Amino acid sequence: MTKVTPRIQAGFMELLPGEQILFNKYLKIIRDTYEEYGFVPQDTPIVENADILFSEIGEDTKKEIYRFSKGGDDLGLRFDLTVPLARYVAMYYNQLTFPYRRYQIGKVYRGERPQKGRFREFYQCDIDIIGNGSLSLANDAEIPAVINRVFEKLDLGDFLISINNRKILSGLVDSLGSLNKIDEILRAIDKLEKVGQETVRLMLIEDLGIKSGDVEKIIEFVKITGSNKQIIDKLESFDIKNDLFDTGVNELKEVVKMAFDFGVPEKNLQIDLSIARGLSYYTGTVYETKLLDDRIKGSVCGGGRFDNLADSYTNQRLPGVGVSIGLTRLFSQLISVGIVKADTSAVAKVLIVPMDKVSAFSLKTASEMRMAGIPVEVFTEDDKFRKKLTYANKVGVPYIAIIGEEEEKLKKIALKNMETGDQELLDIKTVIKKIQNI
Amino acid sequence: MTKVTPRIQAGFMELLPGEQILFNKYLKIIRDTYEEYGFVPQDTPIVENADILFSEIGEDTKKEIYRFSKGGDDLGLRFDLTVPLARYVAMYYNQLTFPYRRYQIGKVYRGERPQKGRFREFYQCDIDIIGNGSLSLANDAEIPAVINRVFEKLDLGDFLISINNRKILSGLVDSLGSLNKIDEILRAIDKLEKVGQETVRLMLIEDLGIKSGDVEKIIEFVKITGSNKQIIDKLESFDIKNDLFDTGVNELKEVVKMAFDFGVPEKNLQIDLSIARGLSYYTGTVYETKLLDDRIKGSVCGGGRFDNLADSYTNQRLPGVGVSIGLTRLFSQLISVGIVKADTSAVAKVLIVPMDKVSAFSLKTASEMRMAGIPVEVFTEDDKFRKKLTYANKVGVPYIAIIGEEEEKLKKIALKNMETGDQELLDIKTVIKKIQNI
Repeated sequence: MTKVTPRIQAGFMELLPGEQILFNKYLKIIRDTYEEYGFVPQDTPIVENADILFSEIGEDTKKEIYRFSKGGDDLGLRFDLTVPLARYVAMYYNQLTFPYRRYQIGKVYRGERPQKGRFREFYQCDIDIIGNGSLSLANDAEIPAVINRVFEKLDLGDFLISINNRKILSGLVDSLGSLNKIDEILRAIDKLEKVGQETVRLMLIEDLGIKSGDVEKIIEFVKITGSNKQIIDKLESFDIKNDLFDTGVNELKEVVKMAFDFGVPEKNLQIDLSIARGLSYYTGTVYETKLLDDRIKGSVCGGGRFDNLADSYTNQRLPGVGVSIGLTRLFSQLISVGIVKADTSAVAKVLIVPMDKVSAFSLKTASEMRMAGIPVEVFTEDDKFRKKLTYANKVGVPYIAIIGEEEEKLKKIALKNMETGDQELLDIKTVIKKIQNI
Repeated sequence: MTKVTPRIQAGFMELLPGEQILFNKYLKIIRDTYEEYGFVPQDTPIVENADILFSEIGEDTKKEIYRFSKGGDDLGLRFDLTVPLARYVAMYYNQLTFPYRRYQIGKVYRGERPQKGRFREFYQCDIDIIGNGSLSLANDAEIPAVINRVFEKLDLGDFLISINNRKILSGLVDSLGSLNKIDEILRAIDKLEKVGQETVRLMLIEDLGIKSGDVEKIIEFVKITGSNKQIIDKLESFDIKNDLFDTGVNELKEVVKMAFDFGVPEKNLQIDLSIARGLSYYTGTVYETKLLDDRIKGSVCGGGRFDNLADSYTNQRLPGVGVSIGLTRLFSQLISVGIVKADTSAVAKVLIVPMDKVSAFSLKTASEMRMAGIPVEVFTEDDKFRKKLTYANKVGVPYIAIIGEEEEKLKKIALKNMETGDQELLDIKTVIKKIQNI
């Protein structure tokens, strides 16, 4: 029989058990933290009607969509979780209670040409808060609190949440008479770190036709550094008569203050006037998060405030604020540079190893431990005892429970700690207590 | 601006927050139980190469596949989790430790014409145990133990796991000289409950050309009822000299005995000789599970033993046994007949309701409770107090923490139980203890 070569598409992450266990641990931390902050789960289809997907995107992203037809319908795979959110909120507007605070953790698809660090299928872990007509700035402050808590719990070392408000730079640009080019300017500024100051300068002058003196002002401005207080002081003393600028500064000041009240430590949140976020739908607060370990490239989490989420689908004004963690890319980097590693490929805490054949007593022991909530695996195959131990070592289970004739007679279990090698003969109740107390 | 009508494809389940919370609770029970039995997580791409998907399926299923091309590649959405499992095991054969016990919970796709109770996107929750060369019968016995535990925990009323072994009927058919038609016969028998005895009789006689006397024997046989012991006794006393038959009876007897040792209560596991499972890859033990509430139609969970999982992709012999819960269809039925209902659309246990504007004390209170692991939401909008209470009632949060000037001065919180209406003025530590003890 001719075999089909087992393979997957490039750009699709698939993990071996040990790594998958670790990945799922991260997913769980993110999910649990989102729920701790009162976000409710959302789960939208991966397949959407093409006109929904195409309603708000640029030509570049359009090309990346996996598009197909079925039964005469023009369909595609979702490329982010924001478009489905907008569609959902417009569709169930009358049944939702606002502010609608939801999280969605799911796979999205971008059919890019495969290249290192780029994925065609990847997890996004999104939270958004959507208001009906209006939404207070306290929500802009809560988002960094959630992200801070997630990254504290993920325990991947120091991290920094950068925060800015697009109205500030927009106000500056407005005062220079170039507000009509603001989206392009923000996109150029967003590339500062990637392409460097000189290239951005040329983009602003040559591509956008901004006067050289104005470009200097813009670049000098986004390079302002200092503590949060120093930056706010500097912004407040800035000699610009522009309402947009002033609103932006006030919003940023208030959001940063409230974020600290929400429990974000000062060291983890920093105003950075160069943060712009490329996407044109952001209108106020913007965020980016980086791990301070410089082996991890790029932002691991970004987002911001948008004035009107769903205007492609409804006349309702639905402002919102949210953020997205790109877990697949982060995880893949963590593994490839060795910051984390999978040290077990077992979820079981105990492996029951029958000395000979599987006995009723072994099965009952497993059942009793499971009823107590302990993850247990039974080695059921008729192998030599030595081979069973090899299996236990390979999967990295922390304890094995050896059960032979002697143990069965005594109704006891020989519990072996696989790390220390210690072995004790215990009754089942004692074993359960011992494992539960780890 | 012209609006795109917000909508989704028929056959795609999408839930409102309250129902989604309940659905996710079920997902979590299934996931946690699978892990309690030592199954490790697996997560394969939703997009597979078309030749992988098409390697083992019939023409009918082929038509249902969402197939498309991208960058010159012929692709499709997975239609079950078994084909990806087979592909995965063949692909990572050298890196896996066998027996490989994995679970995968994920969406699968079948582009059927939409009809009531049929979904085009639905969750399957699969466990399988794959052996390398061989796999002991204890594994066939553990599967019903896992399923039993899942349905006990789901708490959806009484249920019955039906078990059979295809070798038994195959042996009977062999003794009648029709083993070459066994797949078609099993598929016909599988329809007994759906289409009735008369139709199956005609299918066997007219479509398959089985002699009328033999058809009587087959139908009488699969209608044998009684306790597990009675059925086994009857099978053992059956006057058929056929090795396949005898092997089937012995396997069934052993598996049922071990399933009881694994903790399955007698009342939840019943031998049913009419269970056949349509799919031709099953070779021994087969299972089906039904809720005893007759408003829930059809099997909620099915599976069985297969001799060789991945022979489309590898020469390795990889026998396995597994089962799949169709959660989307089950959930949709539970909701539509009213067996379960969503009684809250909040995940938060406490909603913090500031009397006036959001204060630093409110935010700090929220932060402290969250650090203690309590899911908390803060009502951040500048609404009238009455409107804030309406929100609390609508989302069904169990407690609200009212914080005004007075509370802030005293550094206390007015905690209100939304069910009883009781309200107490407490300090934050007492509130945390109280909520944690619920």
